[in-house]
Formats: sequence, structure tokens, C-alpha cells
Amino acid sequence: MRNILLIGAGKSTASLIKYLTDKSKEEKIKIIIADLSLENAKSFAGKHAHTQAIQLDIFNTEERQKAIQDADIVISMLPARFHIEVAKDCVKFNKNLVTASYVSDEMQALDEEVKQKGLTFMNEIGVDPGIDHMSAMQVIDRIRAKGGKMLLFESFTGGLVAPESDTNLWNYKFTWNPRNVVVAGQGGAAVFMQEGQYKYIPYHRLFRRTEFLKVENYGKFEGLANRDSLKYRSIYGLENIKTLYRGTLRRVGFSKAWNMFVQLGMTDDTYTLEDSENMSYRDFVNSFLPYSPTDSVELKTRYNLKIDQDDVMWEKLLELDIFNRNKKIGIKNATPAQALQKILEEKWTLAVDDKDMIVMYHKFGYELDGKTNQIDSTMALIGEDQTYTAMAKTVGLPVAIATLKILNKEITTTGVLRPITKEIYEPILKELSENGIVFKEKERKYLGYNEDNVVG
Amino acid sequence: MRNILLIGAGKSTASLIKYLTDKSKEEKIKIIIADLSLENAKSFAGKHAHTQAIQLDIFNTEERQKAIQDADIVISMLPARFHIEVAKDCVKFNKNLVTASYVSDEMQALDEEVKQKGLTFMNEIGVDPGIDHMSAMQVIDRIRAKGGKMLLFESFTGGLVAPESDTNLWNYKFTWNPRNVVVAGQGGAAVFMQEGQYKYIPYHRLFRRTEFLKVENYGKFEGLANRDSLKYRSIYGLENIKTLYRGTLRRVGFSKAWNMFVQLGMTDDTYTLEDSENMSYRDFVNSFLPYSPTDSVELKTRYNLKIDQDDVMWEKLLELDIFNRNKKIGIKNATPAQALQKILEEKWTLAVDDKDMIVMYHKFGYELDGKTNQIDSTMALIGEDQTYTAMAKTVGLPVAIATLKILNKEITTTGVLRPITKEIYEPILKELSENGIVFKEKERKYLGYNEDNVVG
Repeated sequence: MRNILLIGAGKSTASLIKYLTDKSKEEKIKIIIADLSLENAKSFAGKHAHTQAIQLDIFNTEERQKAIQDADIVISMLPARFHIEVAKDCVKFNKNLVTASYVSDEMQALDEEVKQKGLTFMNEIGVDPGIDHMSAMQVIDRIRAKGGKMLLFESFTGGLVAPESDTNLWNYKFTWNPRNVVVAGQGGAAVFMQEGQYKYIPYHRLFRRTEFLKVENYGKFEGLANRDSLKYRSIYGLENIKTLYRGTLRRVGFSKAWNMFVQLGMTDDTYTLEDSENMSYRDFVNSFLPYSPTDSVELKTRYNLKIDQDDVMWEKLLELDIFNRNKKIGIKNATPAQALQKILEEKWTLAVDDKDMIVMYHKFGYELDGKTNQIDSTMALIGEDQTYTAMAKTVGLPVAIATLKILNKEITTTGVLRPITKEIYEPILKELSENGIVFKEKERKYLGYNEDNVVG
Repeated sequence: MRNILLIGAGKSTASLIKYLTDKSKEEKIKIIIADLSLENAKSFAGKHAHTQAIQLDIFNTEERQKAIQDADIVISMLPARFHIEVAKDCVKFNKNLVTASYVSDEMQALDEEVKQKGLTFMNEIGVDPGIDHMSAMQVIDRIRAKGGKMLLFESFTGGLVAPESDTNLWNYKFTWNPRNVVVAGQGGAAVFMQEGQYKYIPYHRLFRRTEFLKVENYGKFEGLANRDSLKYRSIYGLENIKTLYRGTLRRVGFSKAWNMFVQLGMTDDTYTLEDSENMSYRDFVNSFLPYSPTDSVELKTRYNLKIDQDDVMWEKLLELDIFNRNKKIGIKNATPAQALQKILEEKWTLAVDDKDMIVMYHKFGYELDGKTNQIDSTMALIGEDQTYTAMAKTVGLPVAIATLKILNKEITTTGVLRPITKEIYEPILKELSENGIVFKEKERKYLGYNEDNVVG
């Protein structure tokens, strides 16, 4: 029996645990689920013969080291900032490690030691980062193997509500951490490349520069730029590419509406509102508008945002009940972002029967034998229910698959890794497709940013 | 003979030195002008019998302490962050100190010790902060002495170009540090109070919420909110006031045009542009606009900012030659703000004969004997030339006057001070008015924010 130690049992671990327990007999593995809350660990462990729940405070060195010593491989599903102590112990006790988080500088610093000890520390193997890396590199490597030269790479991922549960005007519900949605894009201008030119979008314009995308059977989406697309140049080996853009997917119209909050200043997370606890939703809106003894908050909002009376933007605001005089923010020293989150959570929380959806869209433009070509690759997955969500599957399955393949020595590359080499992504993508996570490819005429083929 | 040590000889010290040298014989004072550059110190000292230029590196403790020990009083006109070492030495050697800068936390921490030693550390005694404090507190104290209750205080200051030198479409030239103008308002939302309500304006909307003001003989101005108006509640003792707003003055139309830069993202000072050195002005504009193989940077700018072809906004951009293909930014690793500053300095630098102007506008709303009243108090001063500018006069004269009055024991309040008490502001304002810095008052009907007197 081999022990897999899973540290941190949260929403994203349901599919991960199910995958491993389903194979536990045949693979002779036991899954030790460690969490700060034993109750929580137990609820994820269930009554399965090959699972065990333990209480673990990762800041208790003795407890942590004991658990790691007893394991044959470690999965850390903790928040990213807590991985490093686990990682150092894994080096110390010669254990392989799997995480779904971005490689931090501290984690990267362990690379040499990890290699020397012949260990595999697999990171960024969730959905984004994770499935995006693997599905993109598979196509990029294939293009290169044929002798093609990459011209354009664009990649979009969105965590959304499934079409059958899409019941509000915003076409959006929180399927993941609401806070990340409210503050998304903040902290500096978005930077990317288009046709060899560096492009910058300040935060307050981010939601007005979107790109439309269609996914067969799933309809139309809009993509908006992530903060830093340029770091993927070196990671993917795209140093000479002309267009490089990574973004987030929403349903068309979301960004234009979200921009109302940005313009008013409601997404700011850098200061606290005076007496936020006793503010009504209406007071909250009014605090971003000029004082008037006569004009209503409604009219001031319309005037401020130039919303016509028959504009659906207005209906979107009303749907949130944002002008309510009686509902209170009820949070002490709230930032505008926290107050807004409170208002949105009331309307955008998934109902019991609601399902989520993950959509991914890659564009690869390349030159081969003097001709330009384009491949569009798309993936859409709808969750089963509120346990086996699309998010839980797309985050948890690659983690689980990678863990087992490392344990079984099917993946043997050493070092602090991302899943960007063939040895790693091929077997994992294959198994993901057997689990319903399938990419569809389409050959297109390469258009770049010149759809009309006009010479200006 | 008494020694006045002036540390830091810059643009703002010309009028300060002139005031003191004019009185030097009668007052038996000698002005020691200390600067890192002896040349610079000498140029300000001139050939006057009562001045002396010395070289002083304020980071050289021995040099600094020797100069301070030899002085009877010290004026620090250094950048604000450098005052503290001078201040500590002044405590050590029992010297009074005068600065035109905001009281820093470090400076405030010396208060107890300064009081114990019977010393006067006068700060915030330039124009803004300085003349604004004194002229406002004079009226506020008078209203209170009559038994009035303050309802509203608004205060605006602007450093502008004089009407006779106002020759561009922006009605603006740099009369002070250009960098401060380019990054003004950044770093968080502006917060103030209107009729008892807290109001917040995010940076990207700051330039679209202005208030118009008329100054007799000087025309119309617009005021835009400073970052934090609320700190003046405790400083001025206005804890129960309903409207509190401090702002900056520009000519009408400036803010709407400046907002174009804000919207494009050109005022951002938090990241550097790729290859900024070789960017043309046109490239700089284009980096904030989507790529197009056909559309011109001009049309993309118009579309992005929704500028009609006959809109003067467009003429304002053209006047800056901002679409020039040949002019280079020429600065390595420039932030957008630095690149924009470069472009603006080319057009907004004062010509040799140009004069500057300082304008101040206060509104005081109050209740007395059950009736509401308002006093508007305004001051405008035009510079003599490029040495005795309005800025140099309004910053330097209060510093000089305060220094002499402290030296002569006409001002004897001890501690780390601002000029907000009668003992201090009365004699200084009187002498400022003899030097052409005069406030005109007008009684008005109190309107608050309800000019139509409508009950909503």
C-alpha cells in the first residue's frame, strides 16, 4: 500500500479524491486527507476503505513533518503562499510534490536541490494554470515539429455558470472565489503584444477592450486581457512571437456592465469606507456620486454613467437591488470591493441545482512552408453538480492524474516543473480526454489582426 | 549681527532671500545660504554685504552641525524628506526652525522635546500649505468669535500661467515641478464631505468632477478635489462641519482635456514602457490603443476617446505634437508619466517673458443667529518675472516673515507648529498684504449644494 498525502481539503479536491479512491484498490494506494479541520477532512474522506482523515496544522512543524515522512507522495492544495514549508520538508524527506499553484520565487529556488535528489515537484497542474499549459504546448510542439514558426498565441479561460443555470442578466454567477472576481485586473496596467507592438491597458479601461470568441454549441464569449501575458514568452519558448495575449472569458456584455462598477470606483480594495457597517446599498452607491438635495441616486447614477433609460445596463443594476435603502453592507471597515462583493454574493451565488462551466479557447497562428495558418482549439466542460463541479474536475483531475503517474514512475522528469514538456502533457491530456475534458481543433485561415486583409 | 541659516537654494528662495536682505541692515541680520552646490548658493547670495554662500552636504553630519551651531535660526527649504536631520540638530543645539513643508510624522514626534526646550519649529508656512492655512483660519476664527457655527469650508489653490502669458489651448504652463502635475491625484481615491455625506472619487474620474469658480478680474476657474480633505477637520477644528473640500484650480477645460491622458493610461507612474528610449511620440500614443494594420493612430485615438472632429479636445492634442513620428521619448525605462512629461515640457515650459500666477479661493458657510451666511475669500497674484515669480513670492515671503518674527520674538509659541493660531497668522497676513498678497472678501447668500433651494 502506497500513501498519498493530500494537504488541504477544499472545494477543488472532490474530483481529485474521487479519481484516486476509484483507483485505490487496483493501484494499491491509500489517500491520507489532512486538514486543519478534522471534520472537514472526514467529510471528504467519507467511509471509503482506502481513505484516512487526519487533523493537520501545517504551522506545527512536528505534525507536518511526521505526516510527510509517512507519505510516498505529497499533494498540497493549500493556498499558494503556504506551499513552501511543505516543499522544504519534501526536499528534506525525499518526497515528490504536486501543487496546482503558480511557481513562486521561493519554490523555484528549490529547483537545484530537487534535481540533485532526483525528485519531481510538479506545479501549475490545475486548470489555469495547468490544462491551459498542456493543451497549448501540445499544439505548439506539434506545429514546431512540422517546421512551423509561431506567429500568434492567444489563450482564454473562463469559470462561468452552465447555460442551463444561466438565469440572470449578467450571465454570471460565482463559481469560484468571489473576491478574486471583484478585484480581477487590479494592480497595474495589462500588458501584451499585438503584431510585434507592446500594448498597455490601464485597469479603468480593461473592461472596454474585449475580443469576441465563439465556441461551437456553447455560443459567444468575450475575452479580456490578463495582467501580464509577456511572461509566457519564456515559459513557452515564444521569444519571437508577434502576438501574445492571455485573457479571461465572460459572456458577451458582462464586461461592459462590470465597467460600471469600475467607473464608479466600487472595485477599489485599497481604502476603507467610513462607517461601512451601517451603510445601505443605496448609501454605498451614493458615496461615489456628487451630493444633491433633490436628484435621486438613480438619476445621478444614470447621468454619471450615461445610461439611457432603455439600456439593459440599467436593468442589470436593478437586478442587483443595488439602490435598496434597507439592506446594509454590514461589514466593519469594508473596502469598496468588499462592500460590492457582499451585494453581488446575494444574487450571484449558485443555487443548489445550478451547474458551473469551464471554457478554454486557444488560438495558434503560424507560418509553414511560406503560408500562414491558424488552429483554434476549444474546450468546454459542464459540472455534474455542486460537488463534482467543472472547476473541481478541471483543477483536481490533472493533479490526481499527475500524482499517480509520478508515483508509478510514468513521469520521471526531475526538478521544480510546470507541465509543459511532452513526456508530461501527453499522458495526462490523454487521460483527461477519457474523463470528458476534450479539446476540439479547427483549422482556420490565419487572419491575425487584419481580417479584411487590407494594406493600410 | 544675527545669523539666519537658509539650507537649500532653489527657485522658491528668490523672494525669501530678497525680503531678508532688504531688511538685513536695519534688522542686523546676515543670511547664510547653504547649498550642495556652492555655485548655486553664490548665485542666490549675489554681492550683498549681508549674505554669505557656503557649500553644505546635509548628509555630512559634521558640516551640517557646524552650520547649524553657527546660526541663530534655521530655514530648511530642502525637499520635505530631508528636513528631519536638520530638525534633530536644531533640537540638539537649541535653534528655531522654519520650513514650508507638511509636518511629517517624524517631525511631529519632536513636538514634546521642542516644547520642553522652548523652541519654535514653524512648518507649512509657504503658499499651500501656508497662506491657505492663515487666510482660512483668520476668517474661521472671526466667524467663531461672533458665535457663528461653521457649516461649509472649501478651499482651492492653483499655480497657473498669468493671463498675459496664457498663450496655449490648454491655458496651462508648468510654473512649478512638472512631475507633480503629471502624477497629481494618484495613489488612491479622493475623499471629502458634502452636506454630511462622505464622497469618494476614483483617480480615473477625478478630472470629470470639477466645480466652477469665478475670481473678479481674473475670470473663471475649475476646482478638482485633492486626495484627502478630511485631515483638515482636526487641524482646523472643524469636526462637525458638513461640507469639507480642498482642491486644485485650473482654467476651465483643462481637466476635461487632461482626462484624455488619464483615460489612455499615459499618467501611470507604476511601470516602465518597453524600449521607451526609441519610442516616437506617435508610438507612445499607439501603445495605449489596439493594433490595427489600417487605421491611423489619429482615428484610433478619436474613436477610443470619442472625440468629434470639431471638438477642441482634438486641437489640444494636435498642439502638443503628440502624433509626431520623428520626435523620440529618448528616456530609458520611462514610465508612461515620464514619457508624457517629456512631451508636455516641450510645449508647456514658460518662455523667458512669461509670468506665472497664484490663485486661491476659500468658501466659508456658517450659521449665525439662526441664519445661514457665506463668505468667499479670494487672492490672485501675478509674478514679476521668472525670478520673483508669484510662486516664489507666495512660498518665500511667509517663510521670510515668520523667520524674522520668530527671531525677533514677536512669535513665541513653542512646539512643532502650523500657522493656524491668531498670534501667528495675524502679523504675517498683515505683512503679506503690504507685499501685494491680499485677500478680497465677499458676503454671499449661503447656498451650500442647494442653489435652487429645492426640497427634494
